[in-house]
Amino acid sequence: MRVSDDLSITQDIKGVTMYREKIRVLDCTIRDGGLINNHDFDDRFVRAVYTGVAKAGVDYIELGYKNSRELFSSSEYGHWKFCDDDDISRVIDGVDTNIKVSTMVDVGRVDIDDVRPAADSPVDMIRVASYVKDIDKAIFLANHFSDKGYETTINIMAISRDSGPQFEEALHQIKEDCLAQAVYIVDSFGALYQETTEDLIKRAQAILDSKEVGFHGHNNQQLAFSNTIEAIIHDANYLDGTVYGIGRAAGNCPLELLIGFLKNPKFDIRPILDLISNEFIPLREKIEWGYIIPYAITGMMNEHPRTAMKLRNSDKKESYRDYYEELLGSMQ
Amino acid sequence: MRVSDDLSITQDIKGVTMYREKIRVLDCTIRDGGLINNHDFDDRFVRAVYTGVAKAGVDYIELGYKNSRELFSSSEYGHWKFCDDDDISRVIDGVDTNIKVSTMVDVGRVDIDDVRPAADSPVDMIRVASYVKDIDKAIFLANHFSDKGYETTINIMAISRDSGPQFEEALHQIKEDCLAQAVYIVDSFGALYQETTEDLIKRAQAILDSKEVGFHGHNNQQLAFSNTIEAIIHDANYLDGTVYGIGRAAGNCPLELLIGFLKNPKFDIRPILDLISNEFIPLREKIEWGYIIPYAITGMMNEHPRTAMKLRNSDKKESYRDYYEELLGSMQ
Repeated sequence: MRVSDDLSITQDIKGVTMYREKIRVLDCTIRDGGLINNHDFDDRFVRAVYTGVAKAGVDYIELGYKNSRELFSSSEYGHWKFCDDDDISRVIDGVDTNIKVSTMVDVGRVDIDDVRPAADSPVDMIRVASYVKDIDKAIFLANHFSDKGYETTINIMAISRDSGPQFEEALHQIKEDCLAQAVYIVDSFGALYQETTEDLIKRAQAILDSKEVGFHGHNNQQLAFSNTIEAIIHDANYLDGTVYGIGRAAGNCPLELLIGFLKNPKFDIRPILDLISNEFIPLREKIEWGYIIPYAITGMMNEHPRTAMKLRNSDKKESYRDYYEELLGSMQ
Repeated sequence: MRVSDDLSITQDIKGVTMYREKIRVLDCTIRDGGLINNHDFDDRFVRAVYTGVAKAGVDYIELGYKNSRELFSSSEYGHWKFCDDDDISRVIDGVDTNIKVSTMVDVGRVDIDDVRPAADSPVDMIRVASYVKDIDKAIFLANHFSDKGYETTINIMAISRDSGPQFEEALHQIKEDCLAQAVYIVDSFGALYQETTEDLIKRAQAILDSKEVGFHGHNNQQLAFSNTIEAIIHDANYLDGTVYGIGRAAGNCPLELLIGFLKNPKFDIRPILDLISNEFIPLREKIEWGYIIPYAITGMMNEHPRTAMKLRNSDKKESYRDYYEELLGSMQ
């Protein structure tokens, strides 16, 4: 009976704990939040988030993308678009914590020569974001970074559009050829709900076997947290969240809700509450994310939020019906 | 396999539709929203909501409570605390629609002599809100209103605190003695998630047999919509929502998300989008509801939101850690 999967009554394999020790929480506040401010968070803010998230007992913190400066200009983007080791060291040095640092790379946007061996870097993990069609390139990158000593994952994006036979083929290939320790299902469009999440997690697990499965939700339809719970129920162990749900468009699974749900006593919600009170309530006055109707509409329609983001920057930002009709029209 | 319960692949008993025809959506925007403004919506606003919700194809609209004027003063509360037939007729007359009108009564707060026979009233349904312990009184009221010709339901509140043997006893009693057509599981504290929702819905169904089961969520942890989906998956057919999620504290399941999810072609999201653009975006500037950290905390802790509502009306409204510590302390 499904209810017997309830975390609160699941016994750990050691037989004594109520929580699942294998669960790893990754905070990607600075990385996904950076998508709404050109990755231009100042050092004080990043250090505050790093410190708070570390105190909360979170396992990993992702600070941004490792993009090539050949492709993006330093004058247009902040530090966290490039994640130089020196910038990372400056914001994390002196904080007493075991939290691991992650950066993300996009297929086709990283210069692998920019990445030093892990032994010489403050970065512990590199996550490779990829569409299904680019999985060969993603495997190459993940293996390259694994060889340099990093923990690696592959994060398969736009999964709600691409969950057919090619998705399974990609998973088989990752299983055969890739050193990555985990594969994330990324609901880029915020289009999944419980049953579709369950289906994807189970299919990934069946193919990947000993690799871990992760989940990264988007909150277009207020389902990022519940889909993350659904992933937990079906044994996904790598879970993403962001403080106060910050992230592009509708944002992500709120880290405070995830921490509040998990039973592992190593987690402490209080430093996250402080971050929200002191940093994110003021920040939300300046930049926008969260439950906003045009993003809900793209989620329902399984569309990229880009047209909705454009709408929110126009003088028609609250013209929901017109936007809905336009989007419907553009799909026909 | 659970995925096969997906609405999109469920065949209706008639064998041709993709949706479940038995599903009934009830909008309680004015009723639950009234809890944050002393039920003091003006006639123009109520008529706009009624018209939009009706156009969207929603089955029922609930306009407020039927409270005794012996207990509450008309000078302190708006019309929708009392729901006089004349007030209802004034806002609905002339709108061409088949939507049914509902009012809610609380055990111990209604004077049954205030309620005319259904044949003489614009009201079609009366929902009786009750705690488990008051179920005998609720059954009396539901049967009384059924005898007067109304459709009736019993809405069992605070279910996350009261889901033990007495809950089942109450259900047995309703099954034996009550004329109500449906029994709602009401997650008053926003404390349920998928597995607990599934458990309650299944237990209610197993006992109630031929009566319908309903679900009313609260959105403290951004789980009202997903819990409503979970209820749908397990065959609950009476579903509550409110426009833009308005409702006390964290509010309710957003009606626009529910309409967007359901497959019945009779539903049209557009009139709801208009209501949000024209009425609810401006209203949200004046009164507060939604995802607000102190309400998330009461949800996590399975507590009534009253202390959080008090906090939000104080000068410490963003002092989340202190509030968390206080609430923890008060529970010990």
